[in-house]
Amino acid sequence: MPPQSSQLILLIFNFDLSNSCLFSILQQNKGPGVACDFELHVNSWVGCRQSVEFQSSEFNMPSEKSEKAMSPKITGELLRQLRQAMKNCKYFSEPIQAYIIPSGDAHQSEYIAPCDCRREFISGFDGSAGTAIVTEQHAAMWTDGRYFLQASQQMDNNWTLMKMGLKETPSQEDWLISVLPENSKVGVDPWIIAADQWKNMFKALSSAGHSLVAVQDNLIDAVWPDRPERPSTQLRSLGLDYTGISWQDKITALRAKMSERKITWFVATALDEIAWLFNLRGADIEYNPVFFAYTIVGMNTIRFFVDLKRLSNPAVREHLQLDSPSKPELSIQTFPYESVYTELQAICAALGPKDKVWICDKASCALTQVIPKTHRTPIPYTPLCLAKAVKNATEIQGMKMAHIKDAVALCEFFAWLEKEIPKGNVTEISAADKAEELRSQQKDFVGLSFPTISSVGPHGAIIHYRPLPETNRTLTVNEVYLIDSGAQYVDGTTDVTRTMHFGTPSAFEKECFTYVLKGHIAVSAAIFPNGTKGHLLDSFARAALWESGLDYLHGTGHGVGCFLNVHEGPCGISYKTFADEPLEAGMIVSDEPGYYEDGSFGIRLENVVLVVPAKPKYNYRNRGSLTFEPLTLVPIQVKMMNTELLTQKERDWVNEYHRKCREVVGAELERQGRQEALDWLIRESQPII
Amino acid sequence: MPPQSSQLILLIFNFDLSNSCLFSILQQNKGPGVACDFELHVNSWVGCRQSVEFQSSEFNMPSEKSEKAMSPKITGELLRQLRQAMKNCKYFSEPIQAYIIPSGDAHQSEYIAPCDCRREFISGFDGSAGTAIVTEQHAAMWTDGRYFLQASQQMDNNWTLMKMGLKETPSQEDWLISVLPENSKVGVDPWIIAADQWKNMFKALSSAGHSLVAVQDNLIDAVWPDRPERPSTQLRSLGLDYTGISWQDKITALRAKMSERKITWFVATALDEIAWLFNLRGADIEYNPVFFAYTIVGMNTIRFFVDLKRLSNPAVREHLQLDSPSKPELSIQTFPYESVYTELQAICAALGPKDKVWICDKASCALTQVIPKTHRTPIPYTPLCLAKAVKNATEIQGMKMAHIKDAVALCEFFAWLEKEIPKGNVTEISAADKAEELRSQQKDFVGLSFPTISSVGPHGAIIHYRPLPETNRTLTVNEVYLIDSGAQYVDGTTDVTRTMHFGTPSAFEKECFTYVLKGHIAVSAAIFPNGTKGHLLDSFARAALWESGLDYLHGTGHGVGCFLNVHEGPCGISYKTFADEPLEAGMIVSDEPGYYEDGSFGIRLENVVLVVPAKPKYNYRNRGSLTFEPLTLVPIQVKMMNTELLTQKERDWVNEYHRKCREVVGAELERQGRQEALDWLIRESQPII
Repeated sequence: MPPQSSQLILLIFNFDLSNSCLFSILQQNKGPGVACDFELHVNSWVGCRQSVEFQSSEFNMPSEKSEKAMSPKITGELLRQLRQAMKNCKYFSEPIQAYIIPSGDAHQSEYIAPCDCRREFISGFDGSAGTAIVTEQHAAMWTDGRYFLQASQQMDNNWTLMKMGLKETPSQEDWLISVLPENSKVGVDPWIIAADQWKNMFKALSSAGHSLVAVQDNLIDAVWPDRPERPSTQLRSLGLDYTGISWQDKITALRAKMSERKITWFVATALDEIAWLFNLRGADIEYNPVFFAYTIVGMNTIRFFVDLKRLSNPAVREHLQLDSPSKPELSIQTFPYESVYTELQAICAALGPKDKVWICDKASCALTQVIPKTHRTPIPYTPLCLAKAVKNATEIQGMKMAHIKDAVALCEFFAWLEKEIPKGNVTEISAADKAEELRSQQKDFVGLSFPTISSVGPHGAIIHYRPLPETNRTLTVNEVYLIDSGAQYVDGTTDVTRTMHFGTPSAFEKECFTYVLKGHIAVSAAIFPNGTKGHLLDSFARAALWESGLDYLHGTGHGVGCFLNVHEGPCGISYKTFADEPLEAGMIVSDEPGYYEDGSFGIRLENVVLVVPAKPKYNYRNRGSLTFEPLTLVPIQVKMMNTELLTQKERDWVNEYHRKCREVVGAELERQGRQEALDWLIRESQPII
Repeated sequence: MPPQSSQLILLIFNFDLSNSCLFSILQQNKGPGVACDFELHVNSWVGCRQSVEFQSSEFNMPSEKSEKAMSPKITGELLRQLRQAMKNCKYFSEPIQAYIIPSGDAHQSEYIAPCDCRREFISGFDGSAGTAIVTEQHAAMWTDGRYFLQASQQMDNNWTLMKMGLKETPSQEDWLISVLPENSKVGVDPWIIAADQWKNMFKALSSAGHSLVAVQDNLIDAVWPDRPERPSTQLRSLGLDYTGISWQDKITALRAKMSERKITWFVATALDEIAWLFNLRGADIEYNPVFFAYTIVGMNTIRFFVDLKRLSNPAVREHLQLDSPSKPELSIQTFPYESVYTELQAICAALGPKDKVWICDKASCALTQVIPKTHRTPIPYTPLCLAKAVKNATEIQGMKMAHIKDAVALCEFFAWLEKEIPKGNVTEISAADKAEELRSQQKDFVGLSFPTISSVGPHGAIIHYRPLPETNRTLTVNEVYLIDSGAQYVDGTTDVTRTMHFGTPSAFEKECFTYVLKGHIAVSAAIFPNGTKGHLLDSFARAALWESGLDYLHGTGHGVGCFLNVHEGPCGISYKTFADEPLEAGMIVSDEPGYYEDGSFGIRLENVVLVVPAKPKYNYRNRGSLTFEPLTLVPIQVKMMNTELLTQKERDWVNEYHRKCREVVGAELERQGRQEALDWLIRESQPII
């Protein structure tokens, strides 16, 4: 799946990229060259601000109007209740004149649970990006070009749509300043807003004589009687055979980092970091095997904040040694999820003058501000984020296994497609369902790792397209088919894109495919020194396209978790110069250049690749070198290649890759007795000349 | 010349990279893998903070001890006087407990005039980077690995050397906090410190209960009786045949930008920007044809601050229309250089509530703070910096002419070397002198654009080496010779590096040279979309070296001025991800990958290249494409190439490049009747197969 940054937009202030409808992306701006730059905050997989180019499409989806439930939500009564709550001193000591409703949860997750879809609830607008602001007189929604039409159709006329990226559209700050009476108070839920964003909004409002105030109770929740419960799914503990390192050893390593930097406390707020730390998984958020929790680690104590009901499971109690800790410093104290605030307050009240507390600078304003400034050490990436990114031998083995199983399912899927498409009854949705069904037959399958992008012809040019009944197209032998899909297995997470033609591709389709392939190989085969950051490799993926005047408007790769989030930080491969961490052996990223011809077809070739040591001829200053090893082992369609455009080196790469697919996946197909898929694999992995 | 960032270091706080001895670089750290990261501020050519890798060399220059005048300066009495001045309420209302002496001038120039070498005066240490701090009891000097030995030899034992990059070395802030009594005042000259640096130091000291205070009179000047005068060289006005645009039109364009952004005043402080704006040149700073001045431009007024004596020249008066302005809004009001502060104060006192003032965020703290915060709009690059970077047709023509003349001189130089080296009496210095002499014979020659790097064998591995009598080596047929040199001509600025062998290069030398050449070609021939930032091209220059486990530890290119500074912003090609501006047609940068084998040889291949439109097969989203056209036209030594390592495309590039050298420079050599050089050129530009 392409890095979020590629397409998803954000915004001066609200930057949650997720909700349950993520990826149903409409591109609605018309006219050539309507491009806008936004400041984007991709929390979970990059975790830092980056400048993102968002290119509106000139192509109008024929079915865009029907893609969503488009009758506007009636919000008059809701807004009246919200405005009453804004004046209610039960929530804040004085009336507030404006209330900001960002999308997002308290953990700054990329995907969020239904109970956290507050902006959608108040406005009806369910796009993946948007910030609502309600004042005494106005209700306004900021969103970007992908959502102008959708938002205007989902919101009633109580709402003003603020079209981001257009010159005449004011920023949230400027708009607030223009509509607010003097000395106004602007409220926001400090749990939903990250510390660094609070700071920016606070400054802008203060300089205009207003104040930004933290309203502890969420005012949307106050007017949302049937708000869904926060999920509290069953926890699954993972043994050493899956994780390679016990949670006890992870705690010890964390404490070593803390003492190296003279840190006395560490506050973990990101859900995937907590899941990784304790070798636990949940299912609280779709596609992401995480669970709602916080953790505070001191040099001798571990405090774990989670719905305590979840800890009645004996296997989990045993796993966490709740009843018989091996050592006192590895004894986990459990607390209700909600008590993290008061516990952190208590910890901070007892801090010595030199005590320092680590917290990610993307953590919520609420928790961050509990820590007195002199004791607070904000960090762009936590030690857990960094440690999680470098997979150990067991995790690598698991990821390899997961990718072999995934390849088995996909080989079978493509063999099935080849047979079924000519019959004319395979659609984008039924194909996606078939791929899921075949994956689910594999051992330790848990679920998909993101909604399948199954797209035919022009839909392929919509980078994060997700088929819906209203848009569903039939696969034919006349159009290019792009499928970007992945799964969660207990031993690993997959994410693979293949672009296929089941008839005869045009010369232009082949040409573009071949440039994309050249870019994919250029990254995959690159040798680079230790210490190189991923963004330095991004241009390798584009050089062949650039030479012909082509390009793609998304990054080239993102970090991938191990039975965790399919997008994770702190590394990636992108033209955006964000503060990514250098690539290290053991990191796992995607390599997925593409080309999108609006209104016609889309091409993307994605493998998940492992960073491994390389051994070139020399070793300058003993720095050592790295390269990539593909974990994804699914043939790349030779029919789509114009092999004349490939160099001998590139042809060798393709042949070696296909040899490995045949060898590794072929053996597993044979073991599983999937003969048709094996035949397909052998046919599709013949050497090219 | 390589980008400064490559080697020059800076420092938390002091970041001037220049003094008259710049480039006499010693690499003195011992032991493998001693690498350090610093925060570097390259003012004039990049103008923003960047992270720079500084790699200490494992190779010890045999002659390093004799490279500098190494008897320490006796500073006891000077320090006593300085400490008295620190207590003297004539300078500041209360005694100050510490005084910071950065290197630098009030314009944040890369190179500085002798009168601005204050850190050298007080300490004796004349390296290009260093910050001195004097307290009542201590005197400490922060410098980096290149200067540890030199600083320790040039400073007496009143001084403590703070070896930056070593773990045990405290930062300036931490050291100050550790040695100062409570509630101390730390003074600094607000003209020498940039606004953004002031901010950082201010914060650090404030949080420890101290204060950073601006001492308007420079305390070094107060104890420097024979301080050189500030240079006030004759101004040279450039006509339209050199500049292409009159200063009047530049003012009009600037005002258009200002009104677009609703800016009422613009304060220009960078010397090259002021020289460019008025189409004037000076010679106040060696190698840089600039002059000390400030300018403040309003929508109807132009205030020019300069030593008024310089304006008695009738040609200059006429050029600036001082006596008969064509229009009132183009009438230049002249003021003494020193009165910029009071004039800016007067302007700011009269600002309307909505008036905004543009100033570069790298401008001095002194001038920046005159502008009230609510009226101040700091910008990373001024509109002059951006406009100056995109050369117009006249400037491009001038740059091309300058490069042809430069190539004539270099062809003659190399032909001469070939003849003279076997006689055994050409040295690094005499070679550099000969190159200068030959350049000086060319029309409109003004001087060198930087000190010539003329280096034999192991000296070539010292990236900014400058030969001195004590280090001077003889050129032989057994060692690689690297010359990086350039000149100022009235029509343009040059900067070219060639690496030659006058006997038989080793296979390893040829192999490395060929990788460097492949990198040079990869950048020079790259096609990339409009809007691409230079740093995205940096990896192209390294790919061939990386593949063999090699690399070079400097950036690949810097902007080049037109009869202005050889290093200028806002574009460049570097692995550091700084906030460079996108490349545009008309911009001029260097393309100079290298390889340095410590103790043995150095290779660098540098052309100055012009960004030009490219016309590839397609034009994705009508963005348009760019590529480079080499302006430097000096043959690249075929003898150093291992042509087997070149692809056919690369061989074609070399042949086409040499064809152009022969055609363009050959014609000029013929016109000038320089037959020997012509013969050399023809021989050196034969096609390779």
